[in-house]
Parts: sequence; C-alpha cells; structure tokens
Amino acid sequence: SQPLSHILPRMRPVEAIRRKRDGEALAAGDIRAFVEGVTAGRWSDAQAAAMLMAIVLRGMSDEETAALVVAMADSGTRLAWPAADARPCDKHSTGGVGDKTSFVVAPVVAACGGRVPMMSGRGLGHTGGTLDKLEAIPGLTTGLSTRAFLDVVERVGCAIVGQTEEIAPADRRLYALRDVTATVESVPLICASILSKKIAEGALALVLDVKCGRGAFMATDDEARGLAAALVRHGAAAGLAVEAVVSDMDAPLGAACGNALEVAEALDVLGGGGPDDVRLLSLLLAARMLVLSGAAGGEEVAMAMAAEALDGGRARERFAAMVAAQGGDARVVDDPHRLPRAPECLMLVSPRAGVVSTVDARAVGEAVVVLGAGRQRAGDPVDPAVGVRVLVKPGDRVERGTPLAEVHARGAAAAQRAEAALTAAMRIGDEAPATRPLVHAVITTPDGVTSGEVP
Amino acid sequence: SQPLSHILPRMRPVEAIRRKRDGEALAAGDIRAFVEGVTAGRWSDAQAAAMLMAIVLRGMSDEETAALVVAMADSGTRLAWPAADARPCDKHSTGGVGDKTSFVVAPVVAACGGRVPMMSGRGLGHTGGTLDKLEAIPGLTTGLSTRAFLDVVERVGCAIVGQTEEIAPADRRLYALRDVTATVESVPLICASILSKKIAEGALALVLDVKCGRGAFMATDDEARGLAAALVRHGAAAGLAVEAVVSDMDAPLGAACGNALEVAEALDVLGGGGPDDVRLLSLLLAARMLVLSGAAGGEEVAMAMAAEALDGGRARERFAAMVAAQGGDARVVDDPHRLPRAPECLMLVSPRAGVVSTVDARAVGEAVVVLGAGRQRAGDPVDPAVGVRVLVKPGDRVERGTPLAEVHARGAAAAQRAEAALTAAMRIGDEAPATRPLVHAVITTPDGVTSGEVP
Repeated sequence: SQPLSHILPRMRPVEAIRRKRDGEALAAGDIRAFVEGVTAGRWSDAQAAAMLMAIVLRGMSDEETAALVVAMADSGTRLAWPAADARPCDKHSTGGVGDKTSFVVAPVVAACGGRVPMMSGRGLGHTGGTLDKLEAIPGLTTGLSTRAFLDVVERVGCAIVGQTEEIAPADRRLYALRDVTATVESVPLICASILSKKIAEGALALVLDVKCGRGAFMATDDEARGLAAALVRHGAAAGLAVEAVVSDMDAPLGAACGNALEVAEALDVLGGGGPDDVRLLSLLLAARMLVLSGAAGGEEVAMAMAAEALDGGRARERFAAMVAAQGGDARVVDDPHRLPRAPECLMLVSPRAGVVSTVDARAVGEAVVVLGAGRQRAGDPVDPAVGVRVLVKPGDRVERGTPLAEVHARGAAAAQRAEAALTAAMRIGDEAPATRPLVHAVITTPDGVTSGEVP
Repeated sequence: SQPLSHILPRMRPVEAIRRKRDGEALAAGDIRAFVEGVTAGRWSDAQAAAMLMAIVLRGMSDEETAALVVAMADSGTRLAWPAADARPCDKHSTGGVGDKTSFVVAPVVAACGGRVPMMSGRGLGHTGGTLDKLEAIPGLTTGLSTRAFLDVVERVGCAIVGQTEEIAPADRRLYALRDVTATVESVPLICASILSKKIAEGALALVLDVKCGRGAFMATDDEARGLAAALVRHGAAAGLAVEAVVSDMDAPLGAACGNALEVAEALDVLGGGGPDDVRLLSLLLAARMLVLSGAAGGEEVAMAMAAEALDGGRARERFAAMVAAQGGDARVVDDPHRLPRAPECLMLVSPRAGVVSTVDARAVGEAVVVLGAGRQRAGDPVDPAVGVRVLVKPGDRVERGTPLAEVHARGAAAAQRAEAALTAAMRIGDEAPATRPLVHAVITTPDGVTSGEVP
C-alpha cells in the first residue's frame, strides 16, 4: 500500500534507533553500523544517545550483546601477543573503595609465568582508579605507547597502563555520552564496554571482580551476580577463558583509601603482610588467572603457586621491575616513605564503647574525594598524598577512645571536613552486625555458580 | 546510609534524565529546567536526545505535558494581540496531501471579523507545506518580521507566515533532534510542539485538523482520535478555546497536489467553485474558528457566515489583500495563469473500465516529491510549478481511457517517473470501496466526541 517508500532515501541511523525503540532486535550488521558510525562521527551525539537510551529501556538479546562486544572491540586496533605457554590474562574490577589488588595480582601472576597486559582506568566519584593510585609513585607513567606496553609485558610479565587512543575508540565515545545521559545502568552496555576493551588489548583469559555492597555500582548480591553471570556468558561467547568473582564492597577493602596510601598497603601485602582481606582476595584472583591462562593446572596448585610467589618475594621483585620499566622510582618498594605524604594527619577515635556496626564504603570514598584524592568530574586533578586509613572492620569491638581512622589531609580545614564525613560513615552500636563474606560467589561457566561464601 | 551524597555536586540534566528513564514523573521545575537548558545550550544534544527517548518510552502524565507546553511556549517571545471583540484564532493541520484549506479558512475567518495570525510550516517527505505553497505566488514572502506580521493581521485580518526565531525556540531545537533520533512519535511531545507554538504566537482559539488515513501521520481513526483528544485536553488546560476535527487523508484532499496547483485550486474555492471536499472542510474549520474566537454565536450561524463570506467574494478580497500585504502579486487572484506553470503536462488514463478502489495519498505525495514539488530533506529547494492533479476519487466509475490524473513536470523523464508512481498509487477494481467520511470526528471538550461521520 506504500509502493513508493523505497524511492525516498532511508536515514539509516533513525531507522535503527526506531527499531530498537519499538523493541525489535537489531541485526549484527545494524549494530556494527551503529558502532562504526559512532566511531567515525557519522552518527551524531544525539543519535548515539537516543540509541543508548533505547537500549537501556528495551534491553538487548544475547545475540545483540555479542555483536556489540565484537563490533566495539573491532572499532580500533586489536593487540596480538606473541604465542607462549600461558594465555595473556587480565583482571577487571567493577570499582570499589580501597581496592588495590591489581598491584598484587599482576606481579604475582607474572612471577608464576603468566603475562598480564593490564589496561586500567581512572577514578570517578567515590571509587578510586588504579592509574591514579599507581601514578602516586614518583616518576611513574601509565601513558605508555602500544610499543612500550608490549615491551614491558614481554620483559617483566606485567604492565599497568591507560587505554590508548587506538583501543576500542567506540567505547571511549559511547562511555563519555553514557556518563552524562543516564545510560550507564544497562547490563548489555556494561558488558560490551568491559569486554570489548579486554578483547582489544589482546587478553585471552579474564577474571572479573564484580563488587557488591554499599560502595559498589551493584548494591545487592543479586544484581552483582546477575552482572557477573552476564559478563561470563558474553565473555565466553566472545572466546575468552573467563570467570567472575562477586566480592564484598560494603566496607572498604583493606585499610588504606587514597592513592599513595593504597600503594603503600599493596607493598605491605607484597612483603607478605598487609590486611588479610586484601591478601586473600588478591591470591584468589591471581590463582584463578593462573588457571584460566593455563599457567597452572588446577585451583589448588594455582593458589599454592600464588602464595609462594607472594611470600617468597618474587612478586615484589616483579612489581619493582614493572615500576622501573614504567619510569617510576623503584626505591619506593624498599622505602615506602619515598611516596608522597600529606602534611596533616588527624586521628578519629571512637566516642563510645561498643561494636563497629557499619563502615560505609561509599561514604568513606566520598570523604576521600573531599580530601582531594578523587574526582568529582572527569579530568579533575587528584592529590596523590591524601586519603584515609580505616583502622577497624564491621564487627570489631572498640572502647571509647579506640582509634577508628587516620585522616591524611592537605590542610586542617579539609581534615575536619573529612573527619565529619567519616564520623557519619562509621557507626558504633551495641551488637555485632551480620557478617558478610569476602567472596559472595564465583561464577565459572555460563550461568553456573560454583562456589559461594569463601570467608 | 549515603550521608555524603549532597557534598558531590549533582549533575542536574543527568538526574532529570535518570528520573524519567526510571518511570518517575518530572516536577514542573525539572521540565522547565530541561526546556530552558535546551534553549540556552546548557543541555547537550546528547542529553536532550536521551531525555526525548526516555519520554517516548516512558510517557508523560497530563501534569507533565502541561508543564512542557507552557515551558516551551515561554522559551522565546510570546506575542500579545490588541484586545478586540474576537479572540485571535488559528488552525493547525497535522499534515496531509493536497490540503490547501488554510488559504480558504484564513480569509473566510478574517472576512467574518476574526483575526488569524497563522504561523505555518514547510513540507517534508510526502506531506506538503503551507509556506511552500503560498510562496508559489510571485513575490510573496512568508518571512515577515514580528512587527510586519502584527501589522498585516491587524490591517487585513489574516497573515500566513513562517515561525520567527523568537517563537518557541526550544521547539525548533527539540524538533530538529526528534527528526533524526526517532523520537517524533510521542503524543506528549507532539502536543507540546504544536500547542507551544500556537500559544507563543498569541492565538487564544485554536482548531486542530488531525488527519487520518494512508497519507496522514496517524494512519488509523483510533490513533487520530487519541491524538486529537490529547491536543484538545492539553490545549484546554493551557487556556486555549480549542477543538479538533479528525478528517480523512486516505486519498488526497481535492485534486491538486503541488505548490502553485494547490494555490490555483484554493482560488477556485475562493471563487465559489473548486472541489466539494476542499470547500466543505474549509467552511467547517472556518465556522468552528468563528465560534471559538467569539466572532459567531453558534455553529449554524457561523456556517452561514462562512459560506456567505466565501460565496459573496469577501474572503477572496481578503486573500488578495493578504497576498499584497505579504509582497505578492495579487493579480494572480483574478488571473491564476500568472502562477508558475510546468513545461510538461502528461495525462494518466485508466487502463480498464471499473471503479476507482484506491487513491493512495501517501504514494501520490511521494510522486509529487519525485517531481520536485516537495522535499526529501529539510532545506531542499522546492519547484513551485510541478505537481499532480488527481481527477478521480475512490468510488468513481471509470472507462478504459478515462483521465485519472494530470502530471505537471519539469521534464519528460520526471514526468514518466511520476506517472509510474501514480499508476501504482491508483487502483481500479470491480467493486466500489467502502466509503470513508470526510470528517471522522469532532472533539470539542476534553475527551468528548460530539459528532462523527460528517459526510
């Protein structure tokens, strides 16, 4: 009844948006045209944003998500690593407070014969960023060229760098739009963003650390398991050896929150000490990477290898080598006092006897932003020296006057603002709170949960 | 549990988009901030597009729509007309093929003591535009300044001009985005776009002509009634004296489709002749405008007044005065041969005896675009001379060789392309098709349908 419609040229972006708006599935070719159009600027920001909102509200099938992952990975350069016994492997965290495991995991895996080409991000809002933390080491750069990145990984076994311009440029453009258009919260878009970058950097094995709790993007266990399952399913579909760990982020991980403070705590762990939770989660993640990469035959062997690399000092040596290779002052490894230090240090003490009922990771993270260690907006500078060390965990008994946290600040005014924020973040009650496991679940095969409740 | 959230500056656009995305109602203040932000460029195109898609998929309550109408009307200048006996009144059509009623309605109402400050649009796709048609008159301009517009309306009683930069600028920006982001199809957005412009131009009475059928934006009677009811409800809430007519647009209105051809047909109607459907719909719309504006006491009186103005030649005089006031050659009124004429004229005849079963208005409109009378893209030039005159209506009996349509073309090749398109648009069968009424419904009060099936 509309025989002439084909004479009018069809506007491809508008047609594709309309189809998704109306709940129809997009063909792989439509999705590739969208991603390539965004990358080349043929799709306007407005068209990309309309498509993103339609995806958020209409969802995507597994087939559509798979096509999106591959198209985004293909939007720039895809790195290829020389063939070797172990697959190049990486770890990705969905973001939390006090998470410095990358600085332990990468050198542990490298010390066990793995290769870790790790591309990380910067902090935004209450969550810290691996690159910001690592750059607290004097001289160190995370802005390596692709060539230098390849060299460091081949020589040292690991490198931690920023995403280069050539890696998944579609994701960079889409992420910038999602951040300002309320289109971040979409499982297919999150999966495509994370997985496309890992595929483009050449990782063949991947362990995902999906955080859950107050300080995490996913507040509830169910949401986190859902995202973890989707990441594993879509990652496996894209050919990755992939697993996800759902780990706790209700209270901060470890004690240190803030750039140099977190590097110092990671050095403690690399020296065989440090907080139990950081050590345990790091070993667990490293062991799973060793299995997935093929560097270890099984889980138990991998755990033993990882612990041995850590306690024998070999991981610490790799970290020092990586720091040096990335232009940093490797003397910080033996002498953490060479890290930047804040002029003010203020101790927060308990106003009463009781039990720590809450250490709100998000509120602690926001206090750290107030101190200047984090960003309110992308592009803001960060202060490497400032931050907080939380000295208690939920469930700890305290007396009146027991130290709860150290505030490391640039000045007295900032210290006091952060102290007020921390006071609100940490609650002392009369009864022990319900205990939360460090690891809520491990998701190893599409939709399968193999293990929960690792203490 | 998140006591520090208030310390981080909240990104207002992203928050408002998130709320709509999640199905929450926006407060009037949020909607005003959106509209003002779009107008001032504080909202990026991407943010505006994401909000538009969220509105399309989540809808808007009556309260939200009302706030959107008013905020968009307030985004620029609001014209105020000198007090007078009759309210300034306007007519708006949702767009069709062969609809030249504005050229009859405006001068009829003016001749009966009404004032018609009509701001119209240009054609796009298969639908023609009032401004393009009127500009077929040599010398005539529709680009009047606000000052000149006010003068012509006060002096002549009517003017038909383009929307100036100062009228509802938010709508201009939003409409440009909607067109390329598949966010046109939303009743709240359509209502706000139409009503805000009419309110800003200072109309206090408004008759809406919502088209339905193959050639209309709303294909079905139900869809058209729904849009009409929403327009009346929201218009009344904004303080307008408002009614809607749902009129047929399955076949073209009248015979002429194309700019100068339609002006010539309107002149026939202004001379007391012309096609019955154009005459009847024009009188009906004009009569309703006279009632709503207060220039006539009741519907029957208004209909008699309108017919008298038309048949007595006073409407024709007003049209001539308006053409002259807008710089056009008013001699066309007495001598339509002064209108531009196409060099090629080709007659399409029936290949067989039978009954006309279909004249597909959309397909005819597309054939007219192929001839160059319309636009495939906004900003394209249009040819004033070319077009089609459809000589039969659905239900007409024809013999083999009966003329079906004249094609007025710039050259032989275009004429042949249009002829092929027209042949597909007009079908000859053996039985009379179901008859369609000219007027499907008249919607006079919120949600009330007072009359259907005006023949």
